[in-house]
Amino acid sequence: MTGMARTAHRYRTLATQIAATIRAGALRGGHRLPSVRHLSRERGISVTTTLAAYRELEASGLVEARARSGYFVCRNHAEAPVPRAPRLNPRAPVARLSVSPGIEALMVSMRDSTVLPLGAATIDAALLPARSLNRLMATLARESAAAGATYGPPQGVATLRQQLANRSLTWGTAIPADGFVVTVGAMEALNLALRAVTRPGDLIALESPTYFGVLQVAEGLGLRVIEIPCASGDGLDLDHLAQVLRAQPVRACVASPNFHNPTGSCMSNESKERLVRLLARHDLPLVEDDLYGDLAFDGTRPSCAQAFDRHGRVLLCGSVSKTLAPGYRVGWVAAGRYQARVEQLKFSHTIANATLPQMAVAEFLSTGRYDRHLRSLRATFAVQVQRMREAVTACFPEGTRISQPQGAFFLWIELPPALDTMALQQAALRARIAVAPGPLFSASGRFGNFLRLSCGLPWSARVSAGIARLGELIDAQLARARPRRR
Amino acid sequence: MTGMARTAHRYRTLATQIAATIRAGALRGGHRLPSVRHLSRERGISVTTTLAAYRELEASGLVEARARSGYFVCRNHAEAPVPRAPRLNPRAPVARLSVSPGIEALMVSMRDSTVLPLGAATIDAALLPARSLNRLMATLARESAAAGATYGPPQGVATLRQQLANRSLTWGTAIPADGFVVTVGAMEALNLALRAVTRPGDLIALESPTYFGVLQVAEGLGLRVIEIPCASGDGLDLDHLAQVLRAQPVRACVASPNFHNPTGSCMSNESKERLVRLLARHDLPLVEDDLYGDLAFDGTRPSCAQAFDRHGRVLLCGSVSKTLAPGYRVGWVAAGRYQARVEQLKFSHTIANATLPQMAVAEFLSTGRYDRHLRSLRATFAVQVQRMREAVTACFPEGTRISQPQGAFFLWIELPPALDTMALQQAALRARIAVAPGPLFSASGRFGNFLRLSCGLPWSARVSAGIARLGELIDAQLARARPRRR
Repeated sequence: MTGMARTAHRYRTLATQIAATIRAGALRGGHRLPSVRHLSRERGISVTTTLAAYRELEASGLVEARARSGYFVCRNHAEAPVPRAPRLNPRAPVARLSVSPGIEALMVSMRDSTVLPLGAATIDAALLPARSLNRLMATLARESAAAGATYGPPQGVATLRQQLANRSLTWGTAIPADGFVVTVGAMEALNLALRAVTRPGDLIALESPTYFGVLQVAEGLGLRVIEIPCASGDGLDLDHLAQVLRAQPVRACVASPNFHNPTGSCMSNESKERLVRLLARHDLPLVEDDLYGDLAFDGTRPSCAQAFDRHGRVLLCGSVSKTLAPGYRVGWVAAGRYQARVEQLKFSHTIANATLPQMAVAEFLSTGRYDRHLRSLRATFAVQVQRMREAVTACFPEGTRISQPQGAFFLWIELPPALDTMALQQAALRARIAVAPGPLFSASGRFGNFLRLSCGLPWSARVSAGIARLGELIDAQLARARPRRR
Repeated sequence: MTGMARTAHRYRTLATQIAATIRAGALRGGHRLPSVRHLSRERGISVTTTLAAYRELEASGLVEARARSGYFVCRNHAEAPVPRAPRLNPRAPVARLSVSPGIEALMVSMRDSTVLPLGAATIDAALLPARSLNRLMATLARESAAAGATYGPPQGVATLRQQLANRSLTWGTAIPADGFVVTVGAMEALNLALRAVTRPGDLIALESPTYFGVLQVAEGLGLRVIEIPCASGDGLDLDHLAQVLRAQPVRACVASPNFHNPTGSCMSNESKERLVRLLARHDLPLVEDDLYGDLAFDGTRPSCAQAFDRHGRVLLCGSVSKTLAPGYRVGWVAAGRYQARVEQLKFSHTIANATLPQMAVAEFLSTGRYDRHLRSLRATFAVQVQRMREAVTACFPEGTRISQPQGAFFLWIELPPALDTMALQQAALRARIAVAPGPLFSASGRFGNFLRLSCGLPWSARVSAGIARLGELIDAQLARARPRRR
């Protein structure tokens, strides 16, 4: 080990030890850390090393330097409690679908690169193997003169469907190549799946909160929805769902058992099996959104609920948009007993996917590259989520609750009840920061004090400053709210 | 001119003269042509030249050789009358939407290259500039490392929208770049446009016959439809439409004024203007399908109806699938006053198009290549449609009526009333020939004795034999039908 490497090793060790102590709750918010000189003497290390460790802790948002006073543990450093699930009445009237105008603000921010993108669930381009994938597509485009000159098969290119069949083994199931329809991302998959199993006016059950895209699809199809509580831990409240199924004429259920968006919850295999059996008893289809299943931080790929389905009632939706290439628009649905209907619908929806992007993804999946890439991406997301969590803990007010996801790349945050995150979204957008306010994730405008933050960007001074600014905006809103309440 | 070239020139001149005489009706079906020896002597040309001319005429289906008897003009050689438009009652009950199972047979034939594709409106890959376009995309893929790694803008890539804005000048209008939403082909454009202006249960007016994709979209959206007669000449029956609008609560109209699929009709500018004004008087939107507008045989690009719209009520849909690259899935909608709604719907339908195919199409359109390619494609289609027309005239039974399209690449054929083209489709499929039976083009199963044939393939012995075989299958069905009727 060189001298420089030794120094780096020493300050990181020290920083890690202090961080662990803070996270364990042994050092509370506002606590003053030992002075640099004192700690150096005590540990028998150089002042430079201690200072480097403190700066590292400062960069990660755990401590803050105060002028002429030294380093202090940030307030809210401890693990905040996780957000609460909504209380819902299974016999209450069905929520009227009011898809939020906040989605439009989200779209605006997608178009403008000067806005810090913590709103939409997008991933920094540098984290995705776009260069390799584009090179593959370039080669295929030159070699296959005719690709593009004909409509591809409506069901999708055969090589891609074969690769998906192979990958389905890692999902705890085994879907044949003919069991897939390739779609324009998971968004089209959700559209086709829901269209295949419902008619306008039908009632569907979905998670509360739920991905806002599902709400838009439901609205577009003229569906009515009933919300089932979904918590940060094991996800969907199955007891509640069972009550709803007894009380209401539900026609289908939509759920995202693996790293649910936005709560990050991951259902256990037991819960998945229970969910599938419960729906089977009522002869109901499950539209399963498995968009994030490949992104477990610990590398253990959770099974999809479809793996527990023996009757073809699960329509499994996925895509490569969160792991490989959102701009390729390659997704899929494996629709079980509804496969023929979904194939027809695909034709009348978009006829077929663009051919060459499908071929390139198939080629990429056929090598070992995808798994190598996934390993690195999961580790990266684990770090990014952790740092975002620390920064939010440090910068957001007392009473904030933060999800502890074990996969994917967003945080679901419950702020003090007085906060209005729809207003916060507007204020943040003026400060060039995009966030996704809670009401976007509800059919009935719930979660008014909730926020989803995307951790798809590598940690940076810009992101750090963005979180700090959000904290200020939240404080300002709370300060304005208090006098009004008196 | 070499001796060989001179001979070729001579026999082609002779063949053209005889063909013109036959087409003018001066030589009737069954007429015996002068013997080879006789004609050679009379013209002062070699027997070889005359024989070559007769063989050319035979290959094009105008004459037939009978063993030991010489050459005869094929029956039905003369210009057949055009198919009739349906008689519909504007106050009659609204048609119940029954989208035909024949579409599934069409999809099967799209997957199987051993089937002669005269059914779907597809174009031989060799006629499209796939190689150039793929090379462009390959270069872009290598240059733009990040393209693909992010979601493209939901509205579409800016360079493509700018090129569409430029091209809209050739459509008789001027749509700004921001007036377009890029879609996954015209199929998604039709979906978004109709969703933007209707709700489930609404009544829409559409052409009879109409493109079956429109019917599938309407079915998927839970719409009811009323059919307006559309003839081969000037298209939509506007008097009938006016009566319907007075009698029924129509919410929107779908029409394809330029080279309507399947009839090939092209409305005059006067009719287009009348259509737009009529709808404006009822404050109704028009979803205009302009998929084939670039394919006028004479090279004169007809205006789109949108050009006559002063109030933003026309939603203009198009794509490059019939001129450049169906496998790129690049289409668009310019939605006028409904633009914001269509942008939202695009997001919840497929989020965005694949990025690189859009960039490649934009690049291709930005050069003069597209216009050069169109000139050649139009001329090719003119020839292919003419040859298909001649072959159908020669091989199909007495009483057949054939459309005389001035653009695009299909024929709409009315067969004797006893014929059932749904059954013919099945018989043809067993003979490895795909056709599109008439009932596919109607919301209410009309056009049971109609057929659409695609002329997207270069004329060849295989196509020629396919038409001859279809003629035999039709004859066989008629022969079986007659005894049953007695």
